[in-house]
This record gives sequence, structure tokens and C-alpha cells, in this order.
Amino acid sequence: MGLKFAKMHGLGNDFMVVDAISQSFAPDAQTVRRLADRHFGVGFDQLLLVEKPTREDVLFRYRIFNADGSEVQNCGNGARCFARFVYDRGLTDQREIPVETAAGKLVLYIEDDGWVRVNMGQPRFAPHALPFDVPTEQARYDLEVLGQTVEIGAVSLGNPHAMLRVSSVNDAPVEQLGPAIESHPQFPERVNVGFAEVVDRQHVKLRVYERGAGETLACGTGATAAMVMLRRWGLVDDEVTVSLPGGDLRIRWSGDPQEPVWMSGPAEWVFTGELCDAN
Amino acid sequence: MGLKFAKMHGLGNDFMVVDAISQSFAPDAQTVRRLADRHFGVGFDQLLLVEKPTREDVLFRYRIFNADGSEVQNCGNGARCFARFVYDRGLTDQREIPVETAAGKLVLYIEDDGWVRVNMGQPRFAPHALPFDVPTEQARYDLEVLGQTVEIGAVSLGNPHAMLRVSSVNDAPVEQLGPAIESHPQFPERVNVGFAEVVDRQHVKLRVYERGAGETLACGTGATAAMVMLRRWGLVDDEVTVSLPGGDLRIRWSGDPQEPVWMSGPAEWVFTGELCDAN
Repeated sequence: MGLKFAKMHGLGNDFMVVDAISQSFAPDAQTVRRLADRHFGVGFDQLLLVEKPTREDVLFRYRIFNADGSEVQNCGNGARCFARFVYDRGLTDQREIPVETAAGKLVLYIEDDGWVRVNMGQPRFAPHALPFDVPTEQARYDLEVLGQTVEIGAVSLGNPHAMLRVSSVNDAPVEQLGPAIESHPQFPERVNVGFAEVVDRQHVKLRVYERGAGETLACGTGATAAMVMLRRWGLVDDEVTVSLPGGDLRIRWSGDPQEPVWMSGPAEWVFTGELCDAN
Repeated sequence: MGLKFAKMHGLGNDFMVVDAISQSFAPDAQTVRRLADRHFGVGFDQLLLVEKPTREDVLFRYRIFNADGSEVQNCGNGARCFARFVYDRGLTDQREIPVETAAGKLVLYIEDDGWVRVNMGQPRFAPHALPFDVPTEQARYDLEVLGQTVEIGAVSLGNPHAMLRVSSVNDAPVEQLGPAIESHPQFPERVNVGFAEVVDRQHVKLRVYERGAGETLACGTGATAAMVMLRRWGLVDDEVTVSLPGGDLRIRWSGDPQEPVWMSGPAEWVFTGELCDAN
């Protein structure tokens, strides 16, 4: 029998999910790359392995591999797929699921509507946290880029984010300003760039130019960063639906920098599969 | 239970294959597009449905749909996947499989090594068959393109092909000459363009710039056309392995224009799957 797996996605970020507890599966990088190929293999952005934990205060461990075979620390879309996988498969009947990741312990919550909620940690506005090369912390910064001055917010959620408010995401200059801000000399480690349209106090539309990846269908930390900055600017309430090209996320934050930000979003099953013998 | 399917590929041209005899499945174009999406759906170049025949002299009928939902006449890579699907699944124990396609009746043969052989028909060298706007039929033509003169062969195998001999496929100017010849005014319905490197009399390396598609991993009619033209030029024997970026094909042709050309190649199983309920 071949390896059994599921194909899932979170806002179009797609995963091959393998129960590596009931099956023995420890792929090398070459195997991951072969499986990731969308013509010759299963095809996925990332491979997610569900494993037994190595510590006692969690139920599972998961590991995420990029299509190139490298292991990644964590991924919000993957975390949601993991939670729905273990819950829907009956590997746990708990809706509060503590799990071990390469980035440490995480708790995931299955909400009543089936979405999965993740604690995104506390936002860090200090410029050195991104890093962002400016003399003092401010809610808004003027940035000189491509011969113009744009107003941005800047925050770290483990990774660095800049955000611009735009009147319409459809017309936003993502292709021009995205790469220019991403590699701006004042962001020495580069930065993710969000373009946010405030629809109302509970709804924001967002496009994100991701550091090193270009524009993506859905960036969970980008949605979180945008909500946090817009809340700091007083433009949104404490619970906001963020519509990304790949779908919606729900972000909650009180506005108190000592409190964590919560992100909820969907994880969808597409199909279950079993590799054929040669694969 | 969701729809059961297989994922297969022929030289990297990948198919979702559905047994639509044991399952009822008649997708509309929107469903095909949704399933074809590589992030939100199963992901494939083409969908292949195995159906009951509507005529008595064949065992099956198959239909092939592009990822955009349009139905296509036929596809060599798909034909091979079809044959291996029905044979390996035990839907027939015959190794000679007559089948009905949108382009008419076809006979497929499972060879001893597991490759599938297809009759590609007779080559047509008459310029009007492509069409190719030249006064008389010749084995070699001088074509003026991008300020230079290149020597080409021209043949129709149901679709039109031009071929250039190159000293190395790795260095071949596919990106420059491919589109320039494809849309050359002497090919009023455009043309597929092959760049062939003769390794020896039984082995050719080939890259193909496909009409309307650009360079592809593997073009079965392109491999057939290249072998036919190189055989007409006296450079290869009657059985040739053609190495494409996606893998190898074996082409056989006596050299007699009244005789058909035979193409053999692999079809690979990748995985079997079952759609989850929402899909």
C-alpha cells in the first residue's frame, strides 16, 4: 500500500498532509521536492507532517517543509490545516489543541463555525524589532520611495511588516511599491508590504507583497499586522474581517500592546489520496 | 462518498483520470476549472473521462478537457494514460484497445515493457496540408526569420510542424526563434516548432515550442514530426528514441509516406484520490 495523505488548503495556500503517526514517513529533501512537483508528483506549496510529540504538555508535533525540501518554522495557514486534520480525522476530540512546532509550543482552537483560531503573539512596534532604521518609534512614518513620500505603519509579528492605506486594493500599486519598499534601505532585513483598504470599521481588504515571494494569495501575519496598525491608527474596531485575494480571515485585538492578537480562518479539505507504488 | 479519481502523467503532462462508467460524472466547464486549480482543487493540465462507448467496434470512449473547461479532440499523452488506466484497473484484459475519441476511433497497444503505442497516422508533406506558403514541396526549405536564413523541414501530423536541426538542444535559440517561426507569415495558421539534436541514428534530443502554448515538457506529435523529417533527411534509422525535457518517446517509421508512424511512450500513475464532500 502506498502512503496515505490528504490535500488541504488555507486560503489557497495548499498542503499535502500526512499522518506520520500511523504511517512511517521521514522524507529526505529530494523526496519532498519530487512530491511537490505539480506535474510529476502530488503538488503543494508545503508538506505538513503530523507526528508524535517529543514533550509531554502537547498532543502532537507538526513539521512543515517547503516545496524545495527545506523545513520552515511555522505557517499560519498550515497550522489551521493541521488542526482541522487531527480534529476531523478523530486523532483528538479536543477543540483546544496544544501542539509542538519548530517555533515552539502553540495552542490552536477549533471554533464553532469550523474556523481555527491561533494566538499570533504580541505586536512589537519598536523599530529595532523589525528592524526599521528610524530614530524613534511612531504610529506613522513618512518613507521616501520611488521619488514620492508614502505614509506607512511598521510592526513586527515575529516577521517585519510595513503597511500602506490605499483607497482601493484593486488599483493599489503593489507591483511598483511592493518590491521598492520590500528592499528599501531603511529595512535592512527587508520587509513584508501590505496595501490595506478600509471598507468599514469591521472590514478591511488587503493585498500583501511578501518578502522574498512577491504578492501572495493570503498572508496570515500580513493580515494580522494590517489590522493591528489600522487599530493603532483608530480606523477599525477590535474584531475585523480581512479579505485577502485567497479568502477571508478574522483578526481580533484589544489595542493593548500587552495583549496577543488572535487570528481565525478556514482550512479546507480538497481530497484524500494514496501514492501509487512507484512514488 | 466523493468522486474517485487517479492522477497520472505522460512525460509530465498530467491528468486527473475519472472512471465515469462506474461513477456518474458529467462536469460543466466551471467544475472542470475548479478541479484544475492547483491550489484550491486537484490540479491538472487536463481532465480525462473514461466512458461507455456510443459505437460497437470499440471498448471505451474517452473525453479530454483542458483546464479552462474546453473539450479537446485528442492528446497523445492522454491516450497513453487512458490505456494504462483501463488496463491496470482491469476494465479490460486486452492489450490492443480500440477506443472512441472526439477525433474518431483509435487503437492503443500496451507493449511488453508497459509503454503504450499509438498509431500517429501518415505524415503529410504537401505544403497546403500545414498550411505552409511556399511554391513547391521540398525536403528542406530556407526560411527568412529575424534577419537570418534557417533551414527547416515541414510536415503535418494532423497539426503543422516545422523543425530545425541544432548542434545542441541546451543552447538552441528556442526563446527567440520559437515564437518568430510559430507566427511567421508563411505559416498562416501558425506552426509548432521543433529544435532537434541528432545524437546518433537511433537517438534524437528535442525541444518543442508549441503553437499557442510556448515551450512544453513533451509534445508527442512534435517528437513524431521531428523523427519523420530527420528520417526523410537520411539522418536516422527506422526506430528512434526522442528525448524531450519531460522524458523519452520511441518513434518508428519505415520512411514510406504511405505507412503510418508509430509512437510509444510511458504513462505513470502518481496517486489515487477521492474528493472530499465539499468539492
